[in-house]
Amino acid sequence: MSRGRLEAFTDGVIAILITIMILELKVPHGTDWTALSGTVPVLLTYVLSFVYLGIYWSNHHHMLHMTDRVSGGVLWANLHLLFWLSLVPFATSWMGENHYAPVPTALYGAILLLCGFAYFILEKTIIAVQGAGSRLAEAVGSDTKSIFSVALYASAIPLAFLNQTIAHGIYVLVALMWLVPDRRIESRLRRQD
Amino acid sequence: MSRGRLEAFTDGVIAILITIMILELKVPHGTDWTALSGTVPVLLTYVLSFVYLGIYWSNHHHMLHMTDRVSGGVLWANLHLLFWLSLVPFATSWMGENHYAPVPTALYGAILLLCGFAYFILEKTIIAVQGAGSRLAEAVGSDTKSIFSVALYASAIPLAFLNQTIAHGIYVLVALMWLVPDRRIESRLRRQD
Amino acid sequence: MSRGRLEAFTDGVIAILITIMILELKVPHGTDWTALSGTVPVLLTYVLSFVYLGIYWSNHHHMLHMTDRVSGGVLWANLHLLFWLSLVPFATSWMGENHYAPVPTALYGAILLLCGFAYFILEKTIIAVQGAGSRLAEAVGSDTKSIFSVALYASAIPLAFLNQTIAHGIYVLVALMWLVPDRRIESRLRRQD
Amino acid sequence: MSRGRLEAFTDGVIAILITIMILELKVPHGTDWTALSGTVPVLLTYVLSFVYLGIYWSNHHHMLHMTDRVSGGVLWANLHLLFWLSLVPFATSWMGENHYAPVPTALYGAILLLCGFAYFILEKTIIAVQGAGSRLAEAVGSDTKSIFSVALYASAIPLAFLNQTIAHGIYVLVALMWLVPDRRIESRLRRQD
Repeated sequence: MSRGRLEAFTDGVIAILITIMILELKVPHGTDWTALSGTVPVLLTYVLSFVYLGIYWSNHHHMLHMTDRVSGGVLWANLHLLFWLSLVPFATSWMGENHYAPVPTALYGAILLLCGFAYFILEKTIIAVQGAGSRLAEAVGSDTKSIFSVALYASAIPLAFLNQTIAHGIYVLVALMWLVPDRRIESRLRRQD
Repeated sequence: MSRGRLEAFTDGVIAILITIMILELKVPHGTDWTALSGTVPVLLTYVLSFVYLGIYWSNHHHMLHMTDRVSGGVLWANLHLLFWLSLVPFATSWMGENHYAPVPTALYGAILLLCGFAYFILEKTIIAVQGAGSRLAEAVGSDTKSIFSVALYASAIPLAFLNQTIAHGIYVLVALMWLVPDRRIESRLRRQD
Repeated sequence: MSRGRLEAFTDGVIAILITIMILELKVPHGTDWTALSGTVPVLLTYVLSFVYLGIYWSNHHHMLHMTDRVSGGVLWANLHLLFWLSLVPFATSWMGENHYAPVPTALYGAILLLCGFAYFILEKTIIAVQGAGSRLAEAVGSDTKSIFSVALYASAIPLAFLNQTIAHGIYVLVALMWLVPDRRIESRLRRQD
Repeated sequence: MSRGRLEAFTDGVIAILITIMILELKVPHGTDWTALSGTVPVLLTYVLSFVYLGIYWSNHHHMLHMTDRVSGGVLWANLHLLFWLSLVPFATSWMGENHYAPVPTALYGAILLLCGFAYFILEKTIIAVQGAGSRLAEAVGSDTKSIFSVALYASAIPLAFLNQTIAHGIYVLVALMWLVPDRRIESRLRRQD
């Protein structure tokens, strides 16, 4: 089974999510700087989610690049990831409009946590299909970076009820940590050339 | 005629449907757990429709994989399927907001029934183009699973006026029945390797 | 220059137009048959536009299939077609909500007329790039069907001010006339095999 | 690393932006010519942004055509461009509704300026990956056209506070200047044949 349609479908869903999220930014009612500056905090939340969706797209791109075979299970693990990613705009809007409310801040972290888990499941499902000695299994290794991210999200959820700024800081930190695409895979690919 | 653009167009339409449906989930007005819990019943209906659209995409993927030739008739049978699938978000919103109302529950079943019929017509159109002894004709066989699904949808429509919970149960049951991608085709593909 | 991205971009735009148009169908406020039956006239207008967009996608698919070379001029002729197609949902909503108003009915015809012209320009631009003796030039011939459609749209615009039902009838008639994909190209392709 | 998914994702995002921007055109409340003529100034702003997004898509198409290798840095430079492009509909709506307000007119220019910069960064990133003597580096040359555009946008921003019509004129002028796809690349490609 080819990976072409899986990539095309995933690209389509992430392209729609990343674009429509920004399109939901409401046009201000006034026409002066005050009206525009009111959209800035909401815009910043959108930038964060844009970066997160970009990270998932970029890492998905790298992971699928090392995937030779796709099974029905991989299709569903991928749809499972897309489901949680599709809730990112919902969590973004809610937190964007209520920056200092604990429940929206915690929900944002919970959705990121579930996206992280779903990505992890997809990775394991793909590796299982490729077989133990596959290039992907080698490149990914023990995946401490993913485990560390999930631990950070998990810590941000209770912290959202104590101090929202710390929780926001953790979300920004994990995004920065992943902004660089998966060097392990890229360096491996370079070694093969 | 190549099947590439047919797949790309179908992927595009289903990706838009599955994504925008979730985006229609309205951000709650409050910022506490009560506000969030109000979205749960609507979310569950979206999950069901997400799974249905995922099933159609996955089965479409498998079916087209065994398709060698595409005709003008296949293009239109495919557009016909996409038309009914594009009404799924409409039926989902209406039922999601009115869980215990008979007409929305019956309409949801009717749209699923029409999607099922449209898929069946597409399958037969593709088989007719491939010729009688094609791999797809063999893999699909008498397709009792499709006929059984259609019978279940048809029974859910009148039941929606008696007991909505039974009708919802039938919708969940058929989804679970199809969640596994078409094993017949997958096992056939494996045998060929 | 390859035609791949031109097809992909066009598929993307038409897939979005055809899908979002249906998504704009508003969920009724009540939960009974009366509430549902109120959406039927709007739905019928959407079906007509769905068929028109399907016709354009299908004919575009056939035309590009006989295209070997793409130039910058073809890209812009294609974007010009996409611009007029992207106004179809606007005209559909306005006419769908005001079936018996002359201006919305005339505008619908005017947009169809402009889409028809834009398709004609794209066809001529592609033929000019392929060269006089190309397969596409031969297959298209004098294109009386397109000229006839444009004449029908042009007649529907003034008729919309006299009798909207006749204008609607013309829109349905032209759609039926084109519902069958371009047989000239398909039969030519078959002869080549 | 292949450029296929980068193109597909970019096509998806630009297709969504260009289409949804037009879909945001609100259906008039009345049904006469006055109601329709009220949408004309908003429509003209959409046409301008449609042309700008078309220019970016077309030039991106030409640039990627000469790109052999894609790196993680190119993925992110491309996402950075898509981010600013995704703010074009926001700036379009705000300026379209407030033609003679200085801040929306200036913001439109600022977003175009940032899109221009982002495209420039993407171009440089791609050239750096291809190596100094690449076909793209040669074809692009010193890129005076891009530098000139950026200078015009930069001049339109302060002018928006003095005379909005002049600022609008500059936006139209730059669009016309770019409407023709990158002849340098096209002529180079022709020479290679």
